[in-house]
Amino acid sequence: MSDDTKSANEMWGGRFSAGPDAIMEAINASIGYDQRMARQDIEGSRAHAAMLAATGVITEDDAKVIREGLLTVLAEIEAGNFAFSTALEDIHMNVEARLKEIVGEPAGRLHTARSRNDQVATDFRLWVRDQMDAAIDGLEALIRALLGQAEAGADWVMPGFTHLQTAQPVTWGHHMMAYVEMFGRDMSRFRDARARMNESPLGSAALAGTSFPIDRHMTAEALGFDRPTANSLDAVADRDFALEFLSSATICAMHLSRFAEELVIWSSAQFRFVRMSDKWSTGSSIMPQKRNPDAAELIRAKIGRIMGANIGLMTVMKGLPLTYSKDMQEDKEQVFDAADNLMLALAAMTGMVSDMTANTESLEAAASSGFSTATDLADWCVRALNMPFRDAHHVTGSLVAMAEDRGCDLPDLSLEDMQTINAQITEDVFGVLGVRNSVASRTSYGGTAPSEVRKQIARWKETLRNEVPA
Amino acid sequence: MSDDTKSANEMWGGRFSAGPDAIMEAINASIGYDQRMARQDIEGSRAHAAMLAATGVITEDDAKVIREGLLTVLAEIEAGNFAFSTALEDIHMNVEARLKEIVGEPAGRLHTARSRNDQVATDFRLWVRDQMDAAIDGLEALIRALLGQAEAGADWVMPGFTHLQTAQPVTWGHHMMAYVEMFGRDMSRFRDARARMNESPLGSAALAGTSFPIDRHMTAEALGFDRPTANSLDAVADRDFALEFLSSATICAMHLSRFAEELVIWSSAQFRFVRMSDKWSTGSSIMPQKRNPDAAELIRAKIGRIMGANIGLMTVMKGLPLTYSKDMQEDKEQVFDAADNLMLALAAMTGMVSDMTANTESLEAAASSGFSTATDLADWCVRALNMPFRDAHHVTGSLVAMAEDRGCDLPDLSLEDMQTINAQITEDVFGVLGVRNSVASRTSYGGTAPSEVRKQIARWKETLRNEVPA
Amino acid sequence: MSDDTKSANEMWGGRFSAGPDAIMEAINASIGYDQRMARQDIEGSRAHAAMLAATGVITEDDAKVIREGLLTVLAEIEAGNFAFSTALEDIHMNVEARLKEIVGEPAGRLHTARSRNDQVATDFRLWVRDQMDAAIDGLEALIRALLGQAEAGADWVMPGFTHLQTAQPVTWGHHMMAYVEMFGRDMSRFRDARARMNESPLGSAALAGTSFPIDRHMTAEALGFDRPTANSLDAVADRDFALEFLSSATICAMHLSRFAEELVIWSSAQFRFVRMSDKWSTGSSIMPQKRNPDAAELIRAKIGRIMGANIGLMTVMKGLPLTYSKDMQEDKEQVFDAADNLMLALAAMTGMVSDMTANTESLEAAASSGFSTATDLADWCVRALNMPFRDAHHVTGSLVAMAEDRGCDLPDLSLEDMQTINAQITEDVFGVLGVRNSVASRTSYGGTAPSEVRKQIARWKETLRNEVPA
Amino acid sequence: MSDDTKSANEMWGGRFSAGPDAIMEAINASIGYDQRMARQDIEGSRAHAAMLAATGVITEDDAKVIREGLLTVLAEIEAGNFAFSTALEDIHMNVEARLKEIVGEPAGRLHTARSRNDQVATDFRLWVRDQMDAAIDGLEALIRALLGQAEAGADWVMPGFTHLQTAQPVTWGHHMMAYVEMFGRDMSRFRDARARMNESPLGSAALAGTSFPIDRHMTAEALGFDRPTANSLDAVADRDFALEFLSSATICAMHLSRFAEELVIWSSAQFRFVRMSDKWSTGSSIMPQKRNPDAAELIRAKIGRIMGANIGLMTVMKGLPLTYSKDMQEDKEQVFDAADNLMLALAAMTGMVSDMTANTESLEAAASSGFSTATDLADWCVRALNMPFRDAHHVTGSLVAMAEDRGCDLPDLSLEDMQTINAQITEDVFGVLGVRNSVASRTSYGGTAPSEVRKQIARWKETLRNEVPA
Repeated sequence: MSDDTKSANEMWGGRFSAGPDAIMEAINASIGYDQRMARQDIEGSRAHAAMLAATGVITEDDAKVIREGLLTVLAEIEAGNFAFSTALEDIHMNVEARLKEIVGEPAGRLHTARSRNDQVATDFRLWVRDQMDAAIDGLEALIRALLGQAEAGADWVMPGFTHLQTAQPVTWGHHMMAYVEMFGRDMSRFRDARARMNESPLGSAALAGTSFPIDRHMTAEALGFDRPTANSLDAVADRDFALEFLSSATICAMHLSRFAEELVIWSSAQFRFVRMSDKWSTGSSIMPQKRNPDAAELIRAKIGRIMGANIGLMTVMKGLPLTYSKDMQEDKEQVFDAADNLMLALAAMTGMVSDMTANTESLEAAASSGFSTATDLADWCVRALNMPFRDAHHVTGSLVAMAEDRGCDLPDLSLEDMQTINAQITEDVFGVLGVRNSVASRTSYGGTAPSEVRKQIARWKETLRNEVPA
Repeated sequence: MSDDTKSANEMWGGRFSAGPDAIMEAINASIGYDQRMARQDIEGSRAHAAMLAATGVITEDDAKVIREGLLTVLAEIEAGNFAFSTALEDIHMNVEARLKEIVGEPAGRLHTARSRNDQVATDFRLWVRDQMDAAIDGLEALIRALLGQAEAGADWVMPGFTHLQTAQPVTWGHHMMAYVEMFGRDMSRFRDARARMNESPLGSAALAGTSFPIDRHMTAEALGFDRPTANSLDAVADRDFALEFLSSATICAMHLSRFAEELVIWSSAQFRFVRMSDKWSTGSSIMPQKRNPDAAELIRAKIGRIMGANIGLMTVMKGLPLTYSKDMQEDKEQVFDAADNLMLALAAMTGMVSDMTANTESLEAAASSGFSTATDLADWCVRALNMPFRDAHHVTGSLVAMAEDRGCDLPDLSLEDMQTINAQITEDVFGVLGVRNSVASRTSYGGTAPSEVRKQIARWKETLRNEVPA
Repeated sequence: MSDDTKSANEMWGGRFSAGPDAIMEAINASIGYDQRMARQDIEGSRAHAAMLAATGVITEDDAKVIREGLLTVLAEIEAGNFAFSTALEDIHMNVEARLKEIVGEPAGRLHTARSRNDQVATDFRLWVRDQMDAAIDGLEALIRALLGQAEAGADWVMPGFTHLQTAQPVTWGHHMMAYVEMFGRDMSRFRDARARMNESPLGSAALAGTSFPIDRHMTAEALGFDRPTANSLDAVADRDFALEFLSSATICAMHLSRFAEELVIWSSAQFRFVRMSDKWSTGSSIMPQKRNPDAAELIRAKIGRIMGANIGLMTVMKGLPLTYSKDMQEDKEQVFDAADNLMLALAAMTGMVSDMTANTESLEAAASSGFSTATDLADWCVRALNMPFRDAHHVTGSLVAMAEDRGCDLPDLSLEDMQTINAQITEDVFGVLGVRNSVASRTSYGGTAPSEVRKQIARWKETLRNEVPA
Repeated sequence: MSDDTKSANEMWGGRFSAGPDAIMEAINASIGYDQRMARQDIEGSRAHAAMLAATGVITEDDAKVIREGLLTVLAEIEAGNFAFSTALEDIHMNVEARLKEIVGEPAGRLHTARSRNDQVATDFRLWVRDQMDAAIDGLEALIRALLGQAEAGADWVMPGFTHLQTAQPVTWGHHMMAYVEMFGRDMSRFRDARARMNESPLGSAALAGTSFPIDRHMTAEALGFDRPTANSLDAVADRDFALEFLSSATICAMHLSRFAEELVIWSSAQFRFVRMSDKWSTGSSIMPQKRNPDAAELIRAKIGRIMGANIGLMTVMKGLPLTYSKDMQEDKEQVFDAADNLMLALAAMTGMVSDMTANTESLEAAASSGFSTATDLADWCVRALNMPFRDAHHVTGSLVAMAEDRGCDLPDLSLEDMQTINAQITEDVFGVLGVRNSVASRTSYGGTAPSEVRKQIARWKETLRNEVPA
């Protein structure tokens, strides 16, 4: 797809005796999907034309005609009035050919000092940059929804699980905030990726740069890039920006899959921790209790195609010599599909989180069963009786065994009973045995105590306020 | 997507207070892509209706009306006259709804003793089975093209490479036949996969089977299946057939990538081993020597998306409890895309192979340089002089060093010179030093000798004749 | 790694002025892991020596000495008395060097008419073939364990899930048999792969075959191969056998992950469907209710590294020109790790399944709740009242709504109540409303009825008896 | 692996009636590999003990004894005098058990206010952080080696390729600098990842935080972390830091694979662009021309296992509910292997680049053939004759066709000949037709002109000086 490569037989000046047949056209043409970059292509061409005039490569008049003609082309495309031609192979040739129909001879001057190689690199980079921004916005909306749930339930008690077994009581707010941290890292990852990739390939030409006195900083600025890329070979051979988008998207999709899995399990008749809104479930006309968490399941699955796209493009790039190889045309469909599905999953998760209702009774009951405050008891022995931790664990084990024998829970044991295990135990011990006491006591930084959770909610609100100005 | 799950609000009998909004519809509806299974869906329904009548579950009259109505629906779809409805979610509901419009009340009896769960499993299995057949056909065509090249060049000498360094001379035919073996294994893999998956899920109903006196063997036979699946839970939860198709497709795409890589390298100005036909290259209007091997590069890249689809669906299936979960709806687009691209890559490779021209002079010149017959010389010492192999290697190394010092090749050394290294060497040694002698001598089974290559070509022709009757 | 490639400086006859330094040795040497193939390497060499004698390439005396010497080397290795040398790079050179120490000059004749290229291909193929057999054995043991559970619980009622929501009652035996089908397909997949790969590369030499009058069928037979490979280039360039092993292992690991996920969920305090044996759980000294299903979780995770190995090796092979490239040395560690972990996971799952205890009360209670026999009621209306299926669904929905309003279950409604919805309903309807009646009625082939499940158990026992003779 | 989970039967206080058998031990124990984190484990424990004393949870005396005892344990491990016990399962229990033997009772106080969950999270994060630093260092060394090559060959002319076809002449320095850009982005990616992950999980305890008055900022600072993690559930459930390391490593390995591929191709007899040093090649005792680029091939392959590890761990994490699940124990081996191989590949590539020799004659000859300055001619027409670009291309095509007809190159045409195509062409045109003129003219920012390349070299040297102080 170098500058001078033409798609159809007559474009090659009759040099080739046979035209590409239907299979070649099917495998070769990209217009079927790269038309999604029409806006980016036209923005890039408009910036290029303005720069060519500013540097004296073309006249101001030609630039004006070209830039207005391109707006006309864009308007036609956005209105759905544009007839894309497969013979013209890709969005770049389609736009230029139509521009020529509209403005005539000056259209032939637009391609000065550039190539399809830097053009496609620029278009695709602009498109991916938009997706980085969309991902950041989608994550922010999801974080806000989670903050809403966390604020409402900062002190609702629920089980903290390891191995899907109740380990210790925690709070609903704390659990929601765990996901805020995850999605917050995702935002940060997309921000870093955006900053790293925000360089303009335009002006790299086919691969070697150009002898025209172009101003790459000017086009970079016009397109919102921080700077031009520093090596023209790299600029046309690089797809890191797409791969880093996909890598970050995959990690984000993994977070989504974990939360979705929890929502599916929590929605089961056995857990009943949460009720998904009707909007995000499907039901059964004859089985009213059935509330299939379809949206959660679909979100859980999205990591498949997103990671698949990541690996797919990485595999394409493996072992490719510099600079452009046609293999790289396989980049767009993968990224388009992954981006679409990430945005959809983020939006659906945001909707589900906003609309879901926690079943606080089920949550607290589940948190209270199974001697979930045994570690609080052990910690009390360490703290109040100065036992070594490992000894305190031994005492706790004996007390739990006593309660289990009697078929009761820890707070139901009498002080006297407890003292048969260890005579130093005092009345104070009962202060740590309820789940509400337990969660309230865990005030270490980042701990589950409602007071700590509220601090983190406040910190995140402040962060969002500062980072994302209206 | 169990039997009784409905897509839109009114389908759930007004039980849900809020309708799914736009995001839910976007993430949930599959009609955008599963309409590709319209033919399979209708075939399955027709077989089901016939069976319901044969077993007395519905009347022969109803079955007749349903079966004819379904043909009308199919005709509308194939003619492009069908208005697919996103509100009806998927191909199954779209077809049934239209059937109802056409035939009225009997349409309501079609869904007896089945469910969307076994319906989608059946449709998708039929679709994938067609792709197995298409892959086998595509591979056969490619093998025939390779046999053509092998036959033409059974004794053209070319370098045999290790590490992209010439190791020993081989023949063009032998190299082509290496790919015949690979693509032959691919055929065999698809055949095994087809045999394993050729079981009918129809009649598994939602997941538990049914109390209607259905005849699953009858529908299985009508749809070309070898037998019904043996466990209804597995039948609706299983996507092995799709995964095995993707796994086999990935290995096949890997083979294609190796051959494509060779064609790209061979087409370079430095190698000039092969000239790709104009049909499968793109050129440059101003750089006539440039013949970009676009088709080869695109084929090389296809492993990316095919392996991506394989991993994508495997990841979706990871850890899914039985039976159907909505996650599984993510199966189709991955498989559709992988299948389309595999077939395209096979067709393009077949075309390229058929049309390419070997540059026999370049091939033989490359094979002849670099002391490529040194191992023949060593083997001669073992055979003729009864040296241990490791000693023979030592003698050969000395002879090569002598030739290198004199700036000549091995056959250019005189017998006297050679005898200064080892006095036992005789005139006979010159019989093994030319590349044509070298390849002709390697007559071990599967070896590169033209006689051996021709035997393998004949064997493959016989195999294709027997396995794939016209 | 062609025949004549030597590892260390002096092996290259002093031609290279600088020795490979520590980094090169670290990246290049394979003896650290390929020593696992010692037995296969020695078996291959013994077969090769016997054949060389039989075809007159070496003397019977030399062959005898070599073959006995190799047994000595093997004994040393198996006793842990062998000093592996990194300077000798790989298992092949280590064995040959030691053989030379033991038997002297004849050792130098062993490498006649072969190369490290066909030697490594043969060794690795033998090793992978053993793993195919091990996987088949492991799967058979797991299937037997599942058949034991299925037989015990052929009529225990449990919920059949879609979306982790109860859909219809099924039987424990039926659920176990679903996994028998999956693991049965895995067995069949490994069997097909084994048959496809059971060809001997030995005698392909460096890549071109050989001019020695070897008998490749003889070595093939001695090593248990069905035939020699048909193309020597392909034989040294091919790693399909490893990739097909990994692909099949990945699908198998996916099945394991699904079952493991169910066991984790079923072990939760909320489900209590199953109690894992102490052998396969870890507990807590102070939280007796906690039974962490560690083994199930580890099994669930194994798909990660197995699929990772699959993709890893596929990516290595992508785009490699023929024949051997050093990249291919990255094949073994991936396959070793995947095979080890697959066998471990199969063994652990077999142990868990054998030892686990179903909580039949919890299972039946869960199956009975939530109007799980609503579809039975609808089917009854179709069958007994000749309603179209879609109408029967409507009637059922109304009856369920009535029961839901009254806070009772379907069997608790009176006939009179039911008749207010539809006057045709008769006393017979109560025969389908209990979960035991429901499962007993689903006698379609592969259905959940205990009678059907028992037929499938019997069929599988017969299959195992026939396919795997003691 | 929650705090109170013990590994062996007696650790569970005899509660479990059966001990884990050999399979369970094999699948469950991690000490075989997590002993690599011994130093990190002991550093974490030392920081924790100091903090416990500072906050009054344990005495200063106990802390002193513990901290010194831990140094003894570390010394034993580093000296290879430590007997790791599989029964003690992991590095944490091994260290603590040995500490108890050394210091007695105070050892039992070390585990106060922490858990194995936050301990493993801390250890592994510290280990991965070290690998981030190692990757950054390895990349810096590689960049310095590339700058050395670029400086030496800033004006050596070579072909710039698209599709492995010569497109335009470029400079060796420019090509080397393309990789500097890639590896520079890799450095930046690891830096961002390091900054993001540099938070201390220590003090998150089992999952909920703790009621002890710990100071998480103090331990964070002692361990070089920027801050404590903000949510204890997330802290024990998170493996993003490992995944981001693997994602960045995969992209880096992809860059390495591209360069390695070029080196393999450039080392072929057909290209002869570069001569790899003896240190990084293997040869043949009898084929002196054979210089197998083993190191380059092994580097090219490393993306396989690194991407495999990335996908492997991502797949493990997919769909895991919070917080710790035993599945997560599958994290370390994947990351260890990927990190080891990345560092090895970086070191080997640095060595190869430092030692390789460009064949400047071959490079320039290849750059000069094939009308590689045709685009310069077209650009001259635009610039000097004010033709529209598309028209200039047409004229150039005609001139090239004329040269091709005459079997000469563009500079060999006479001015008169050229003027028959376009009368406006002047003598000046010859100034752009040589490859040296061509590259010198491409002075756009990032272009291939030696002057531009030298500016970029200087910029990078300055960057390295500022970012990586000695």
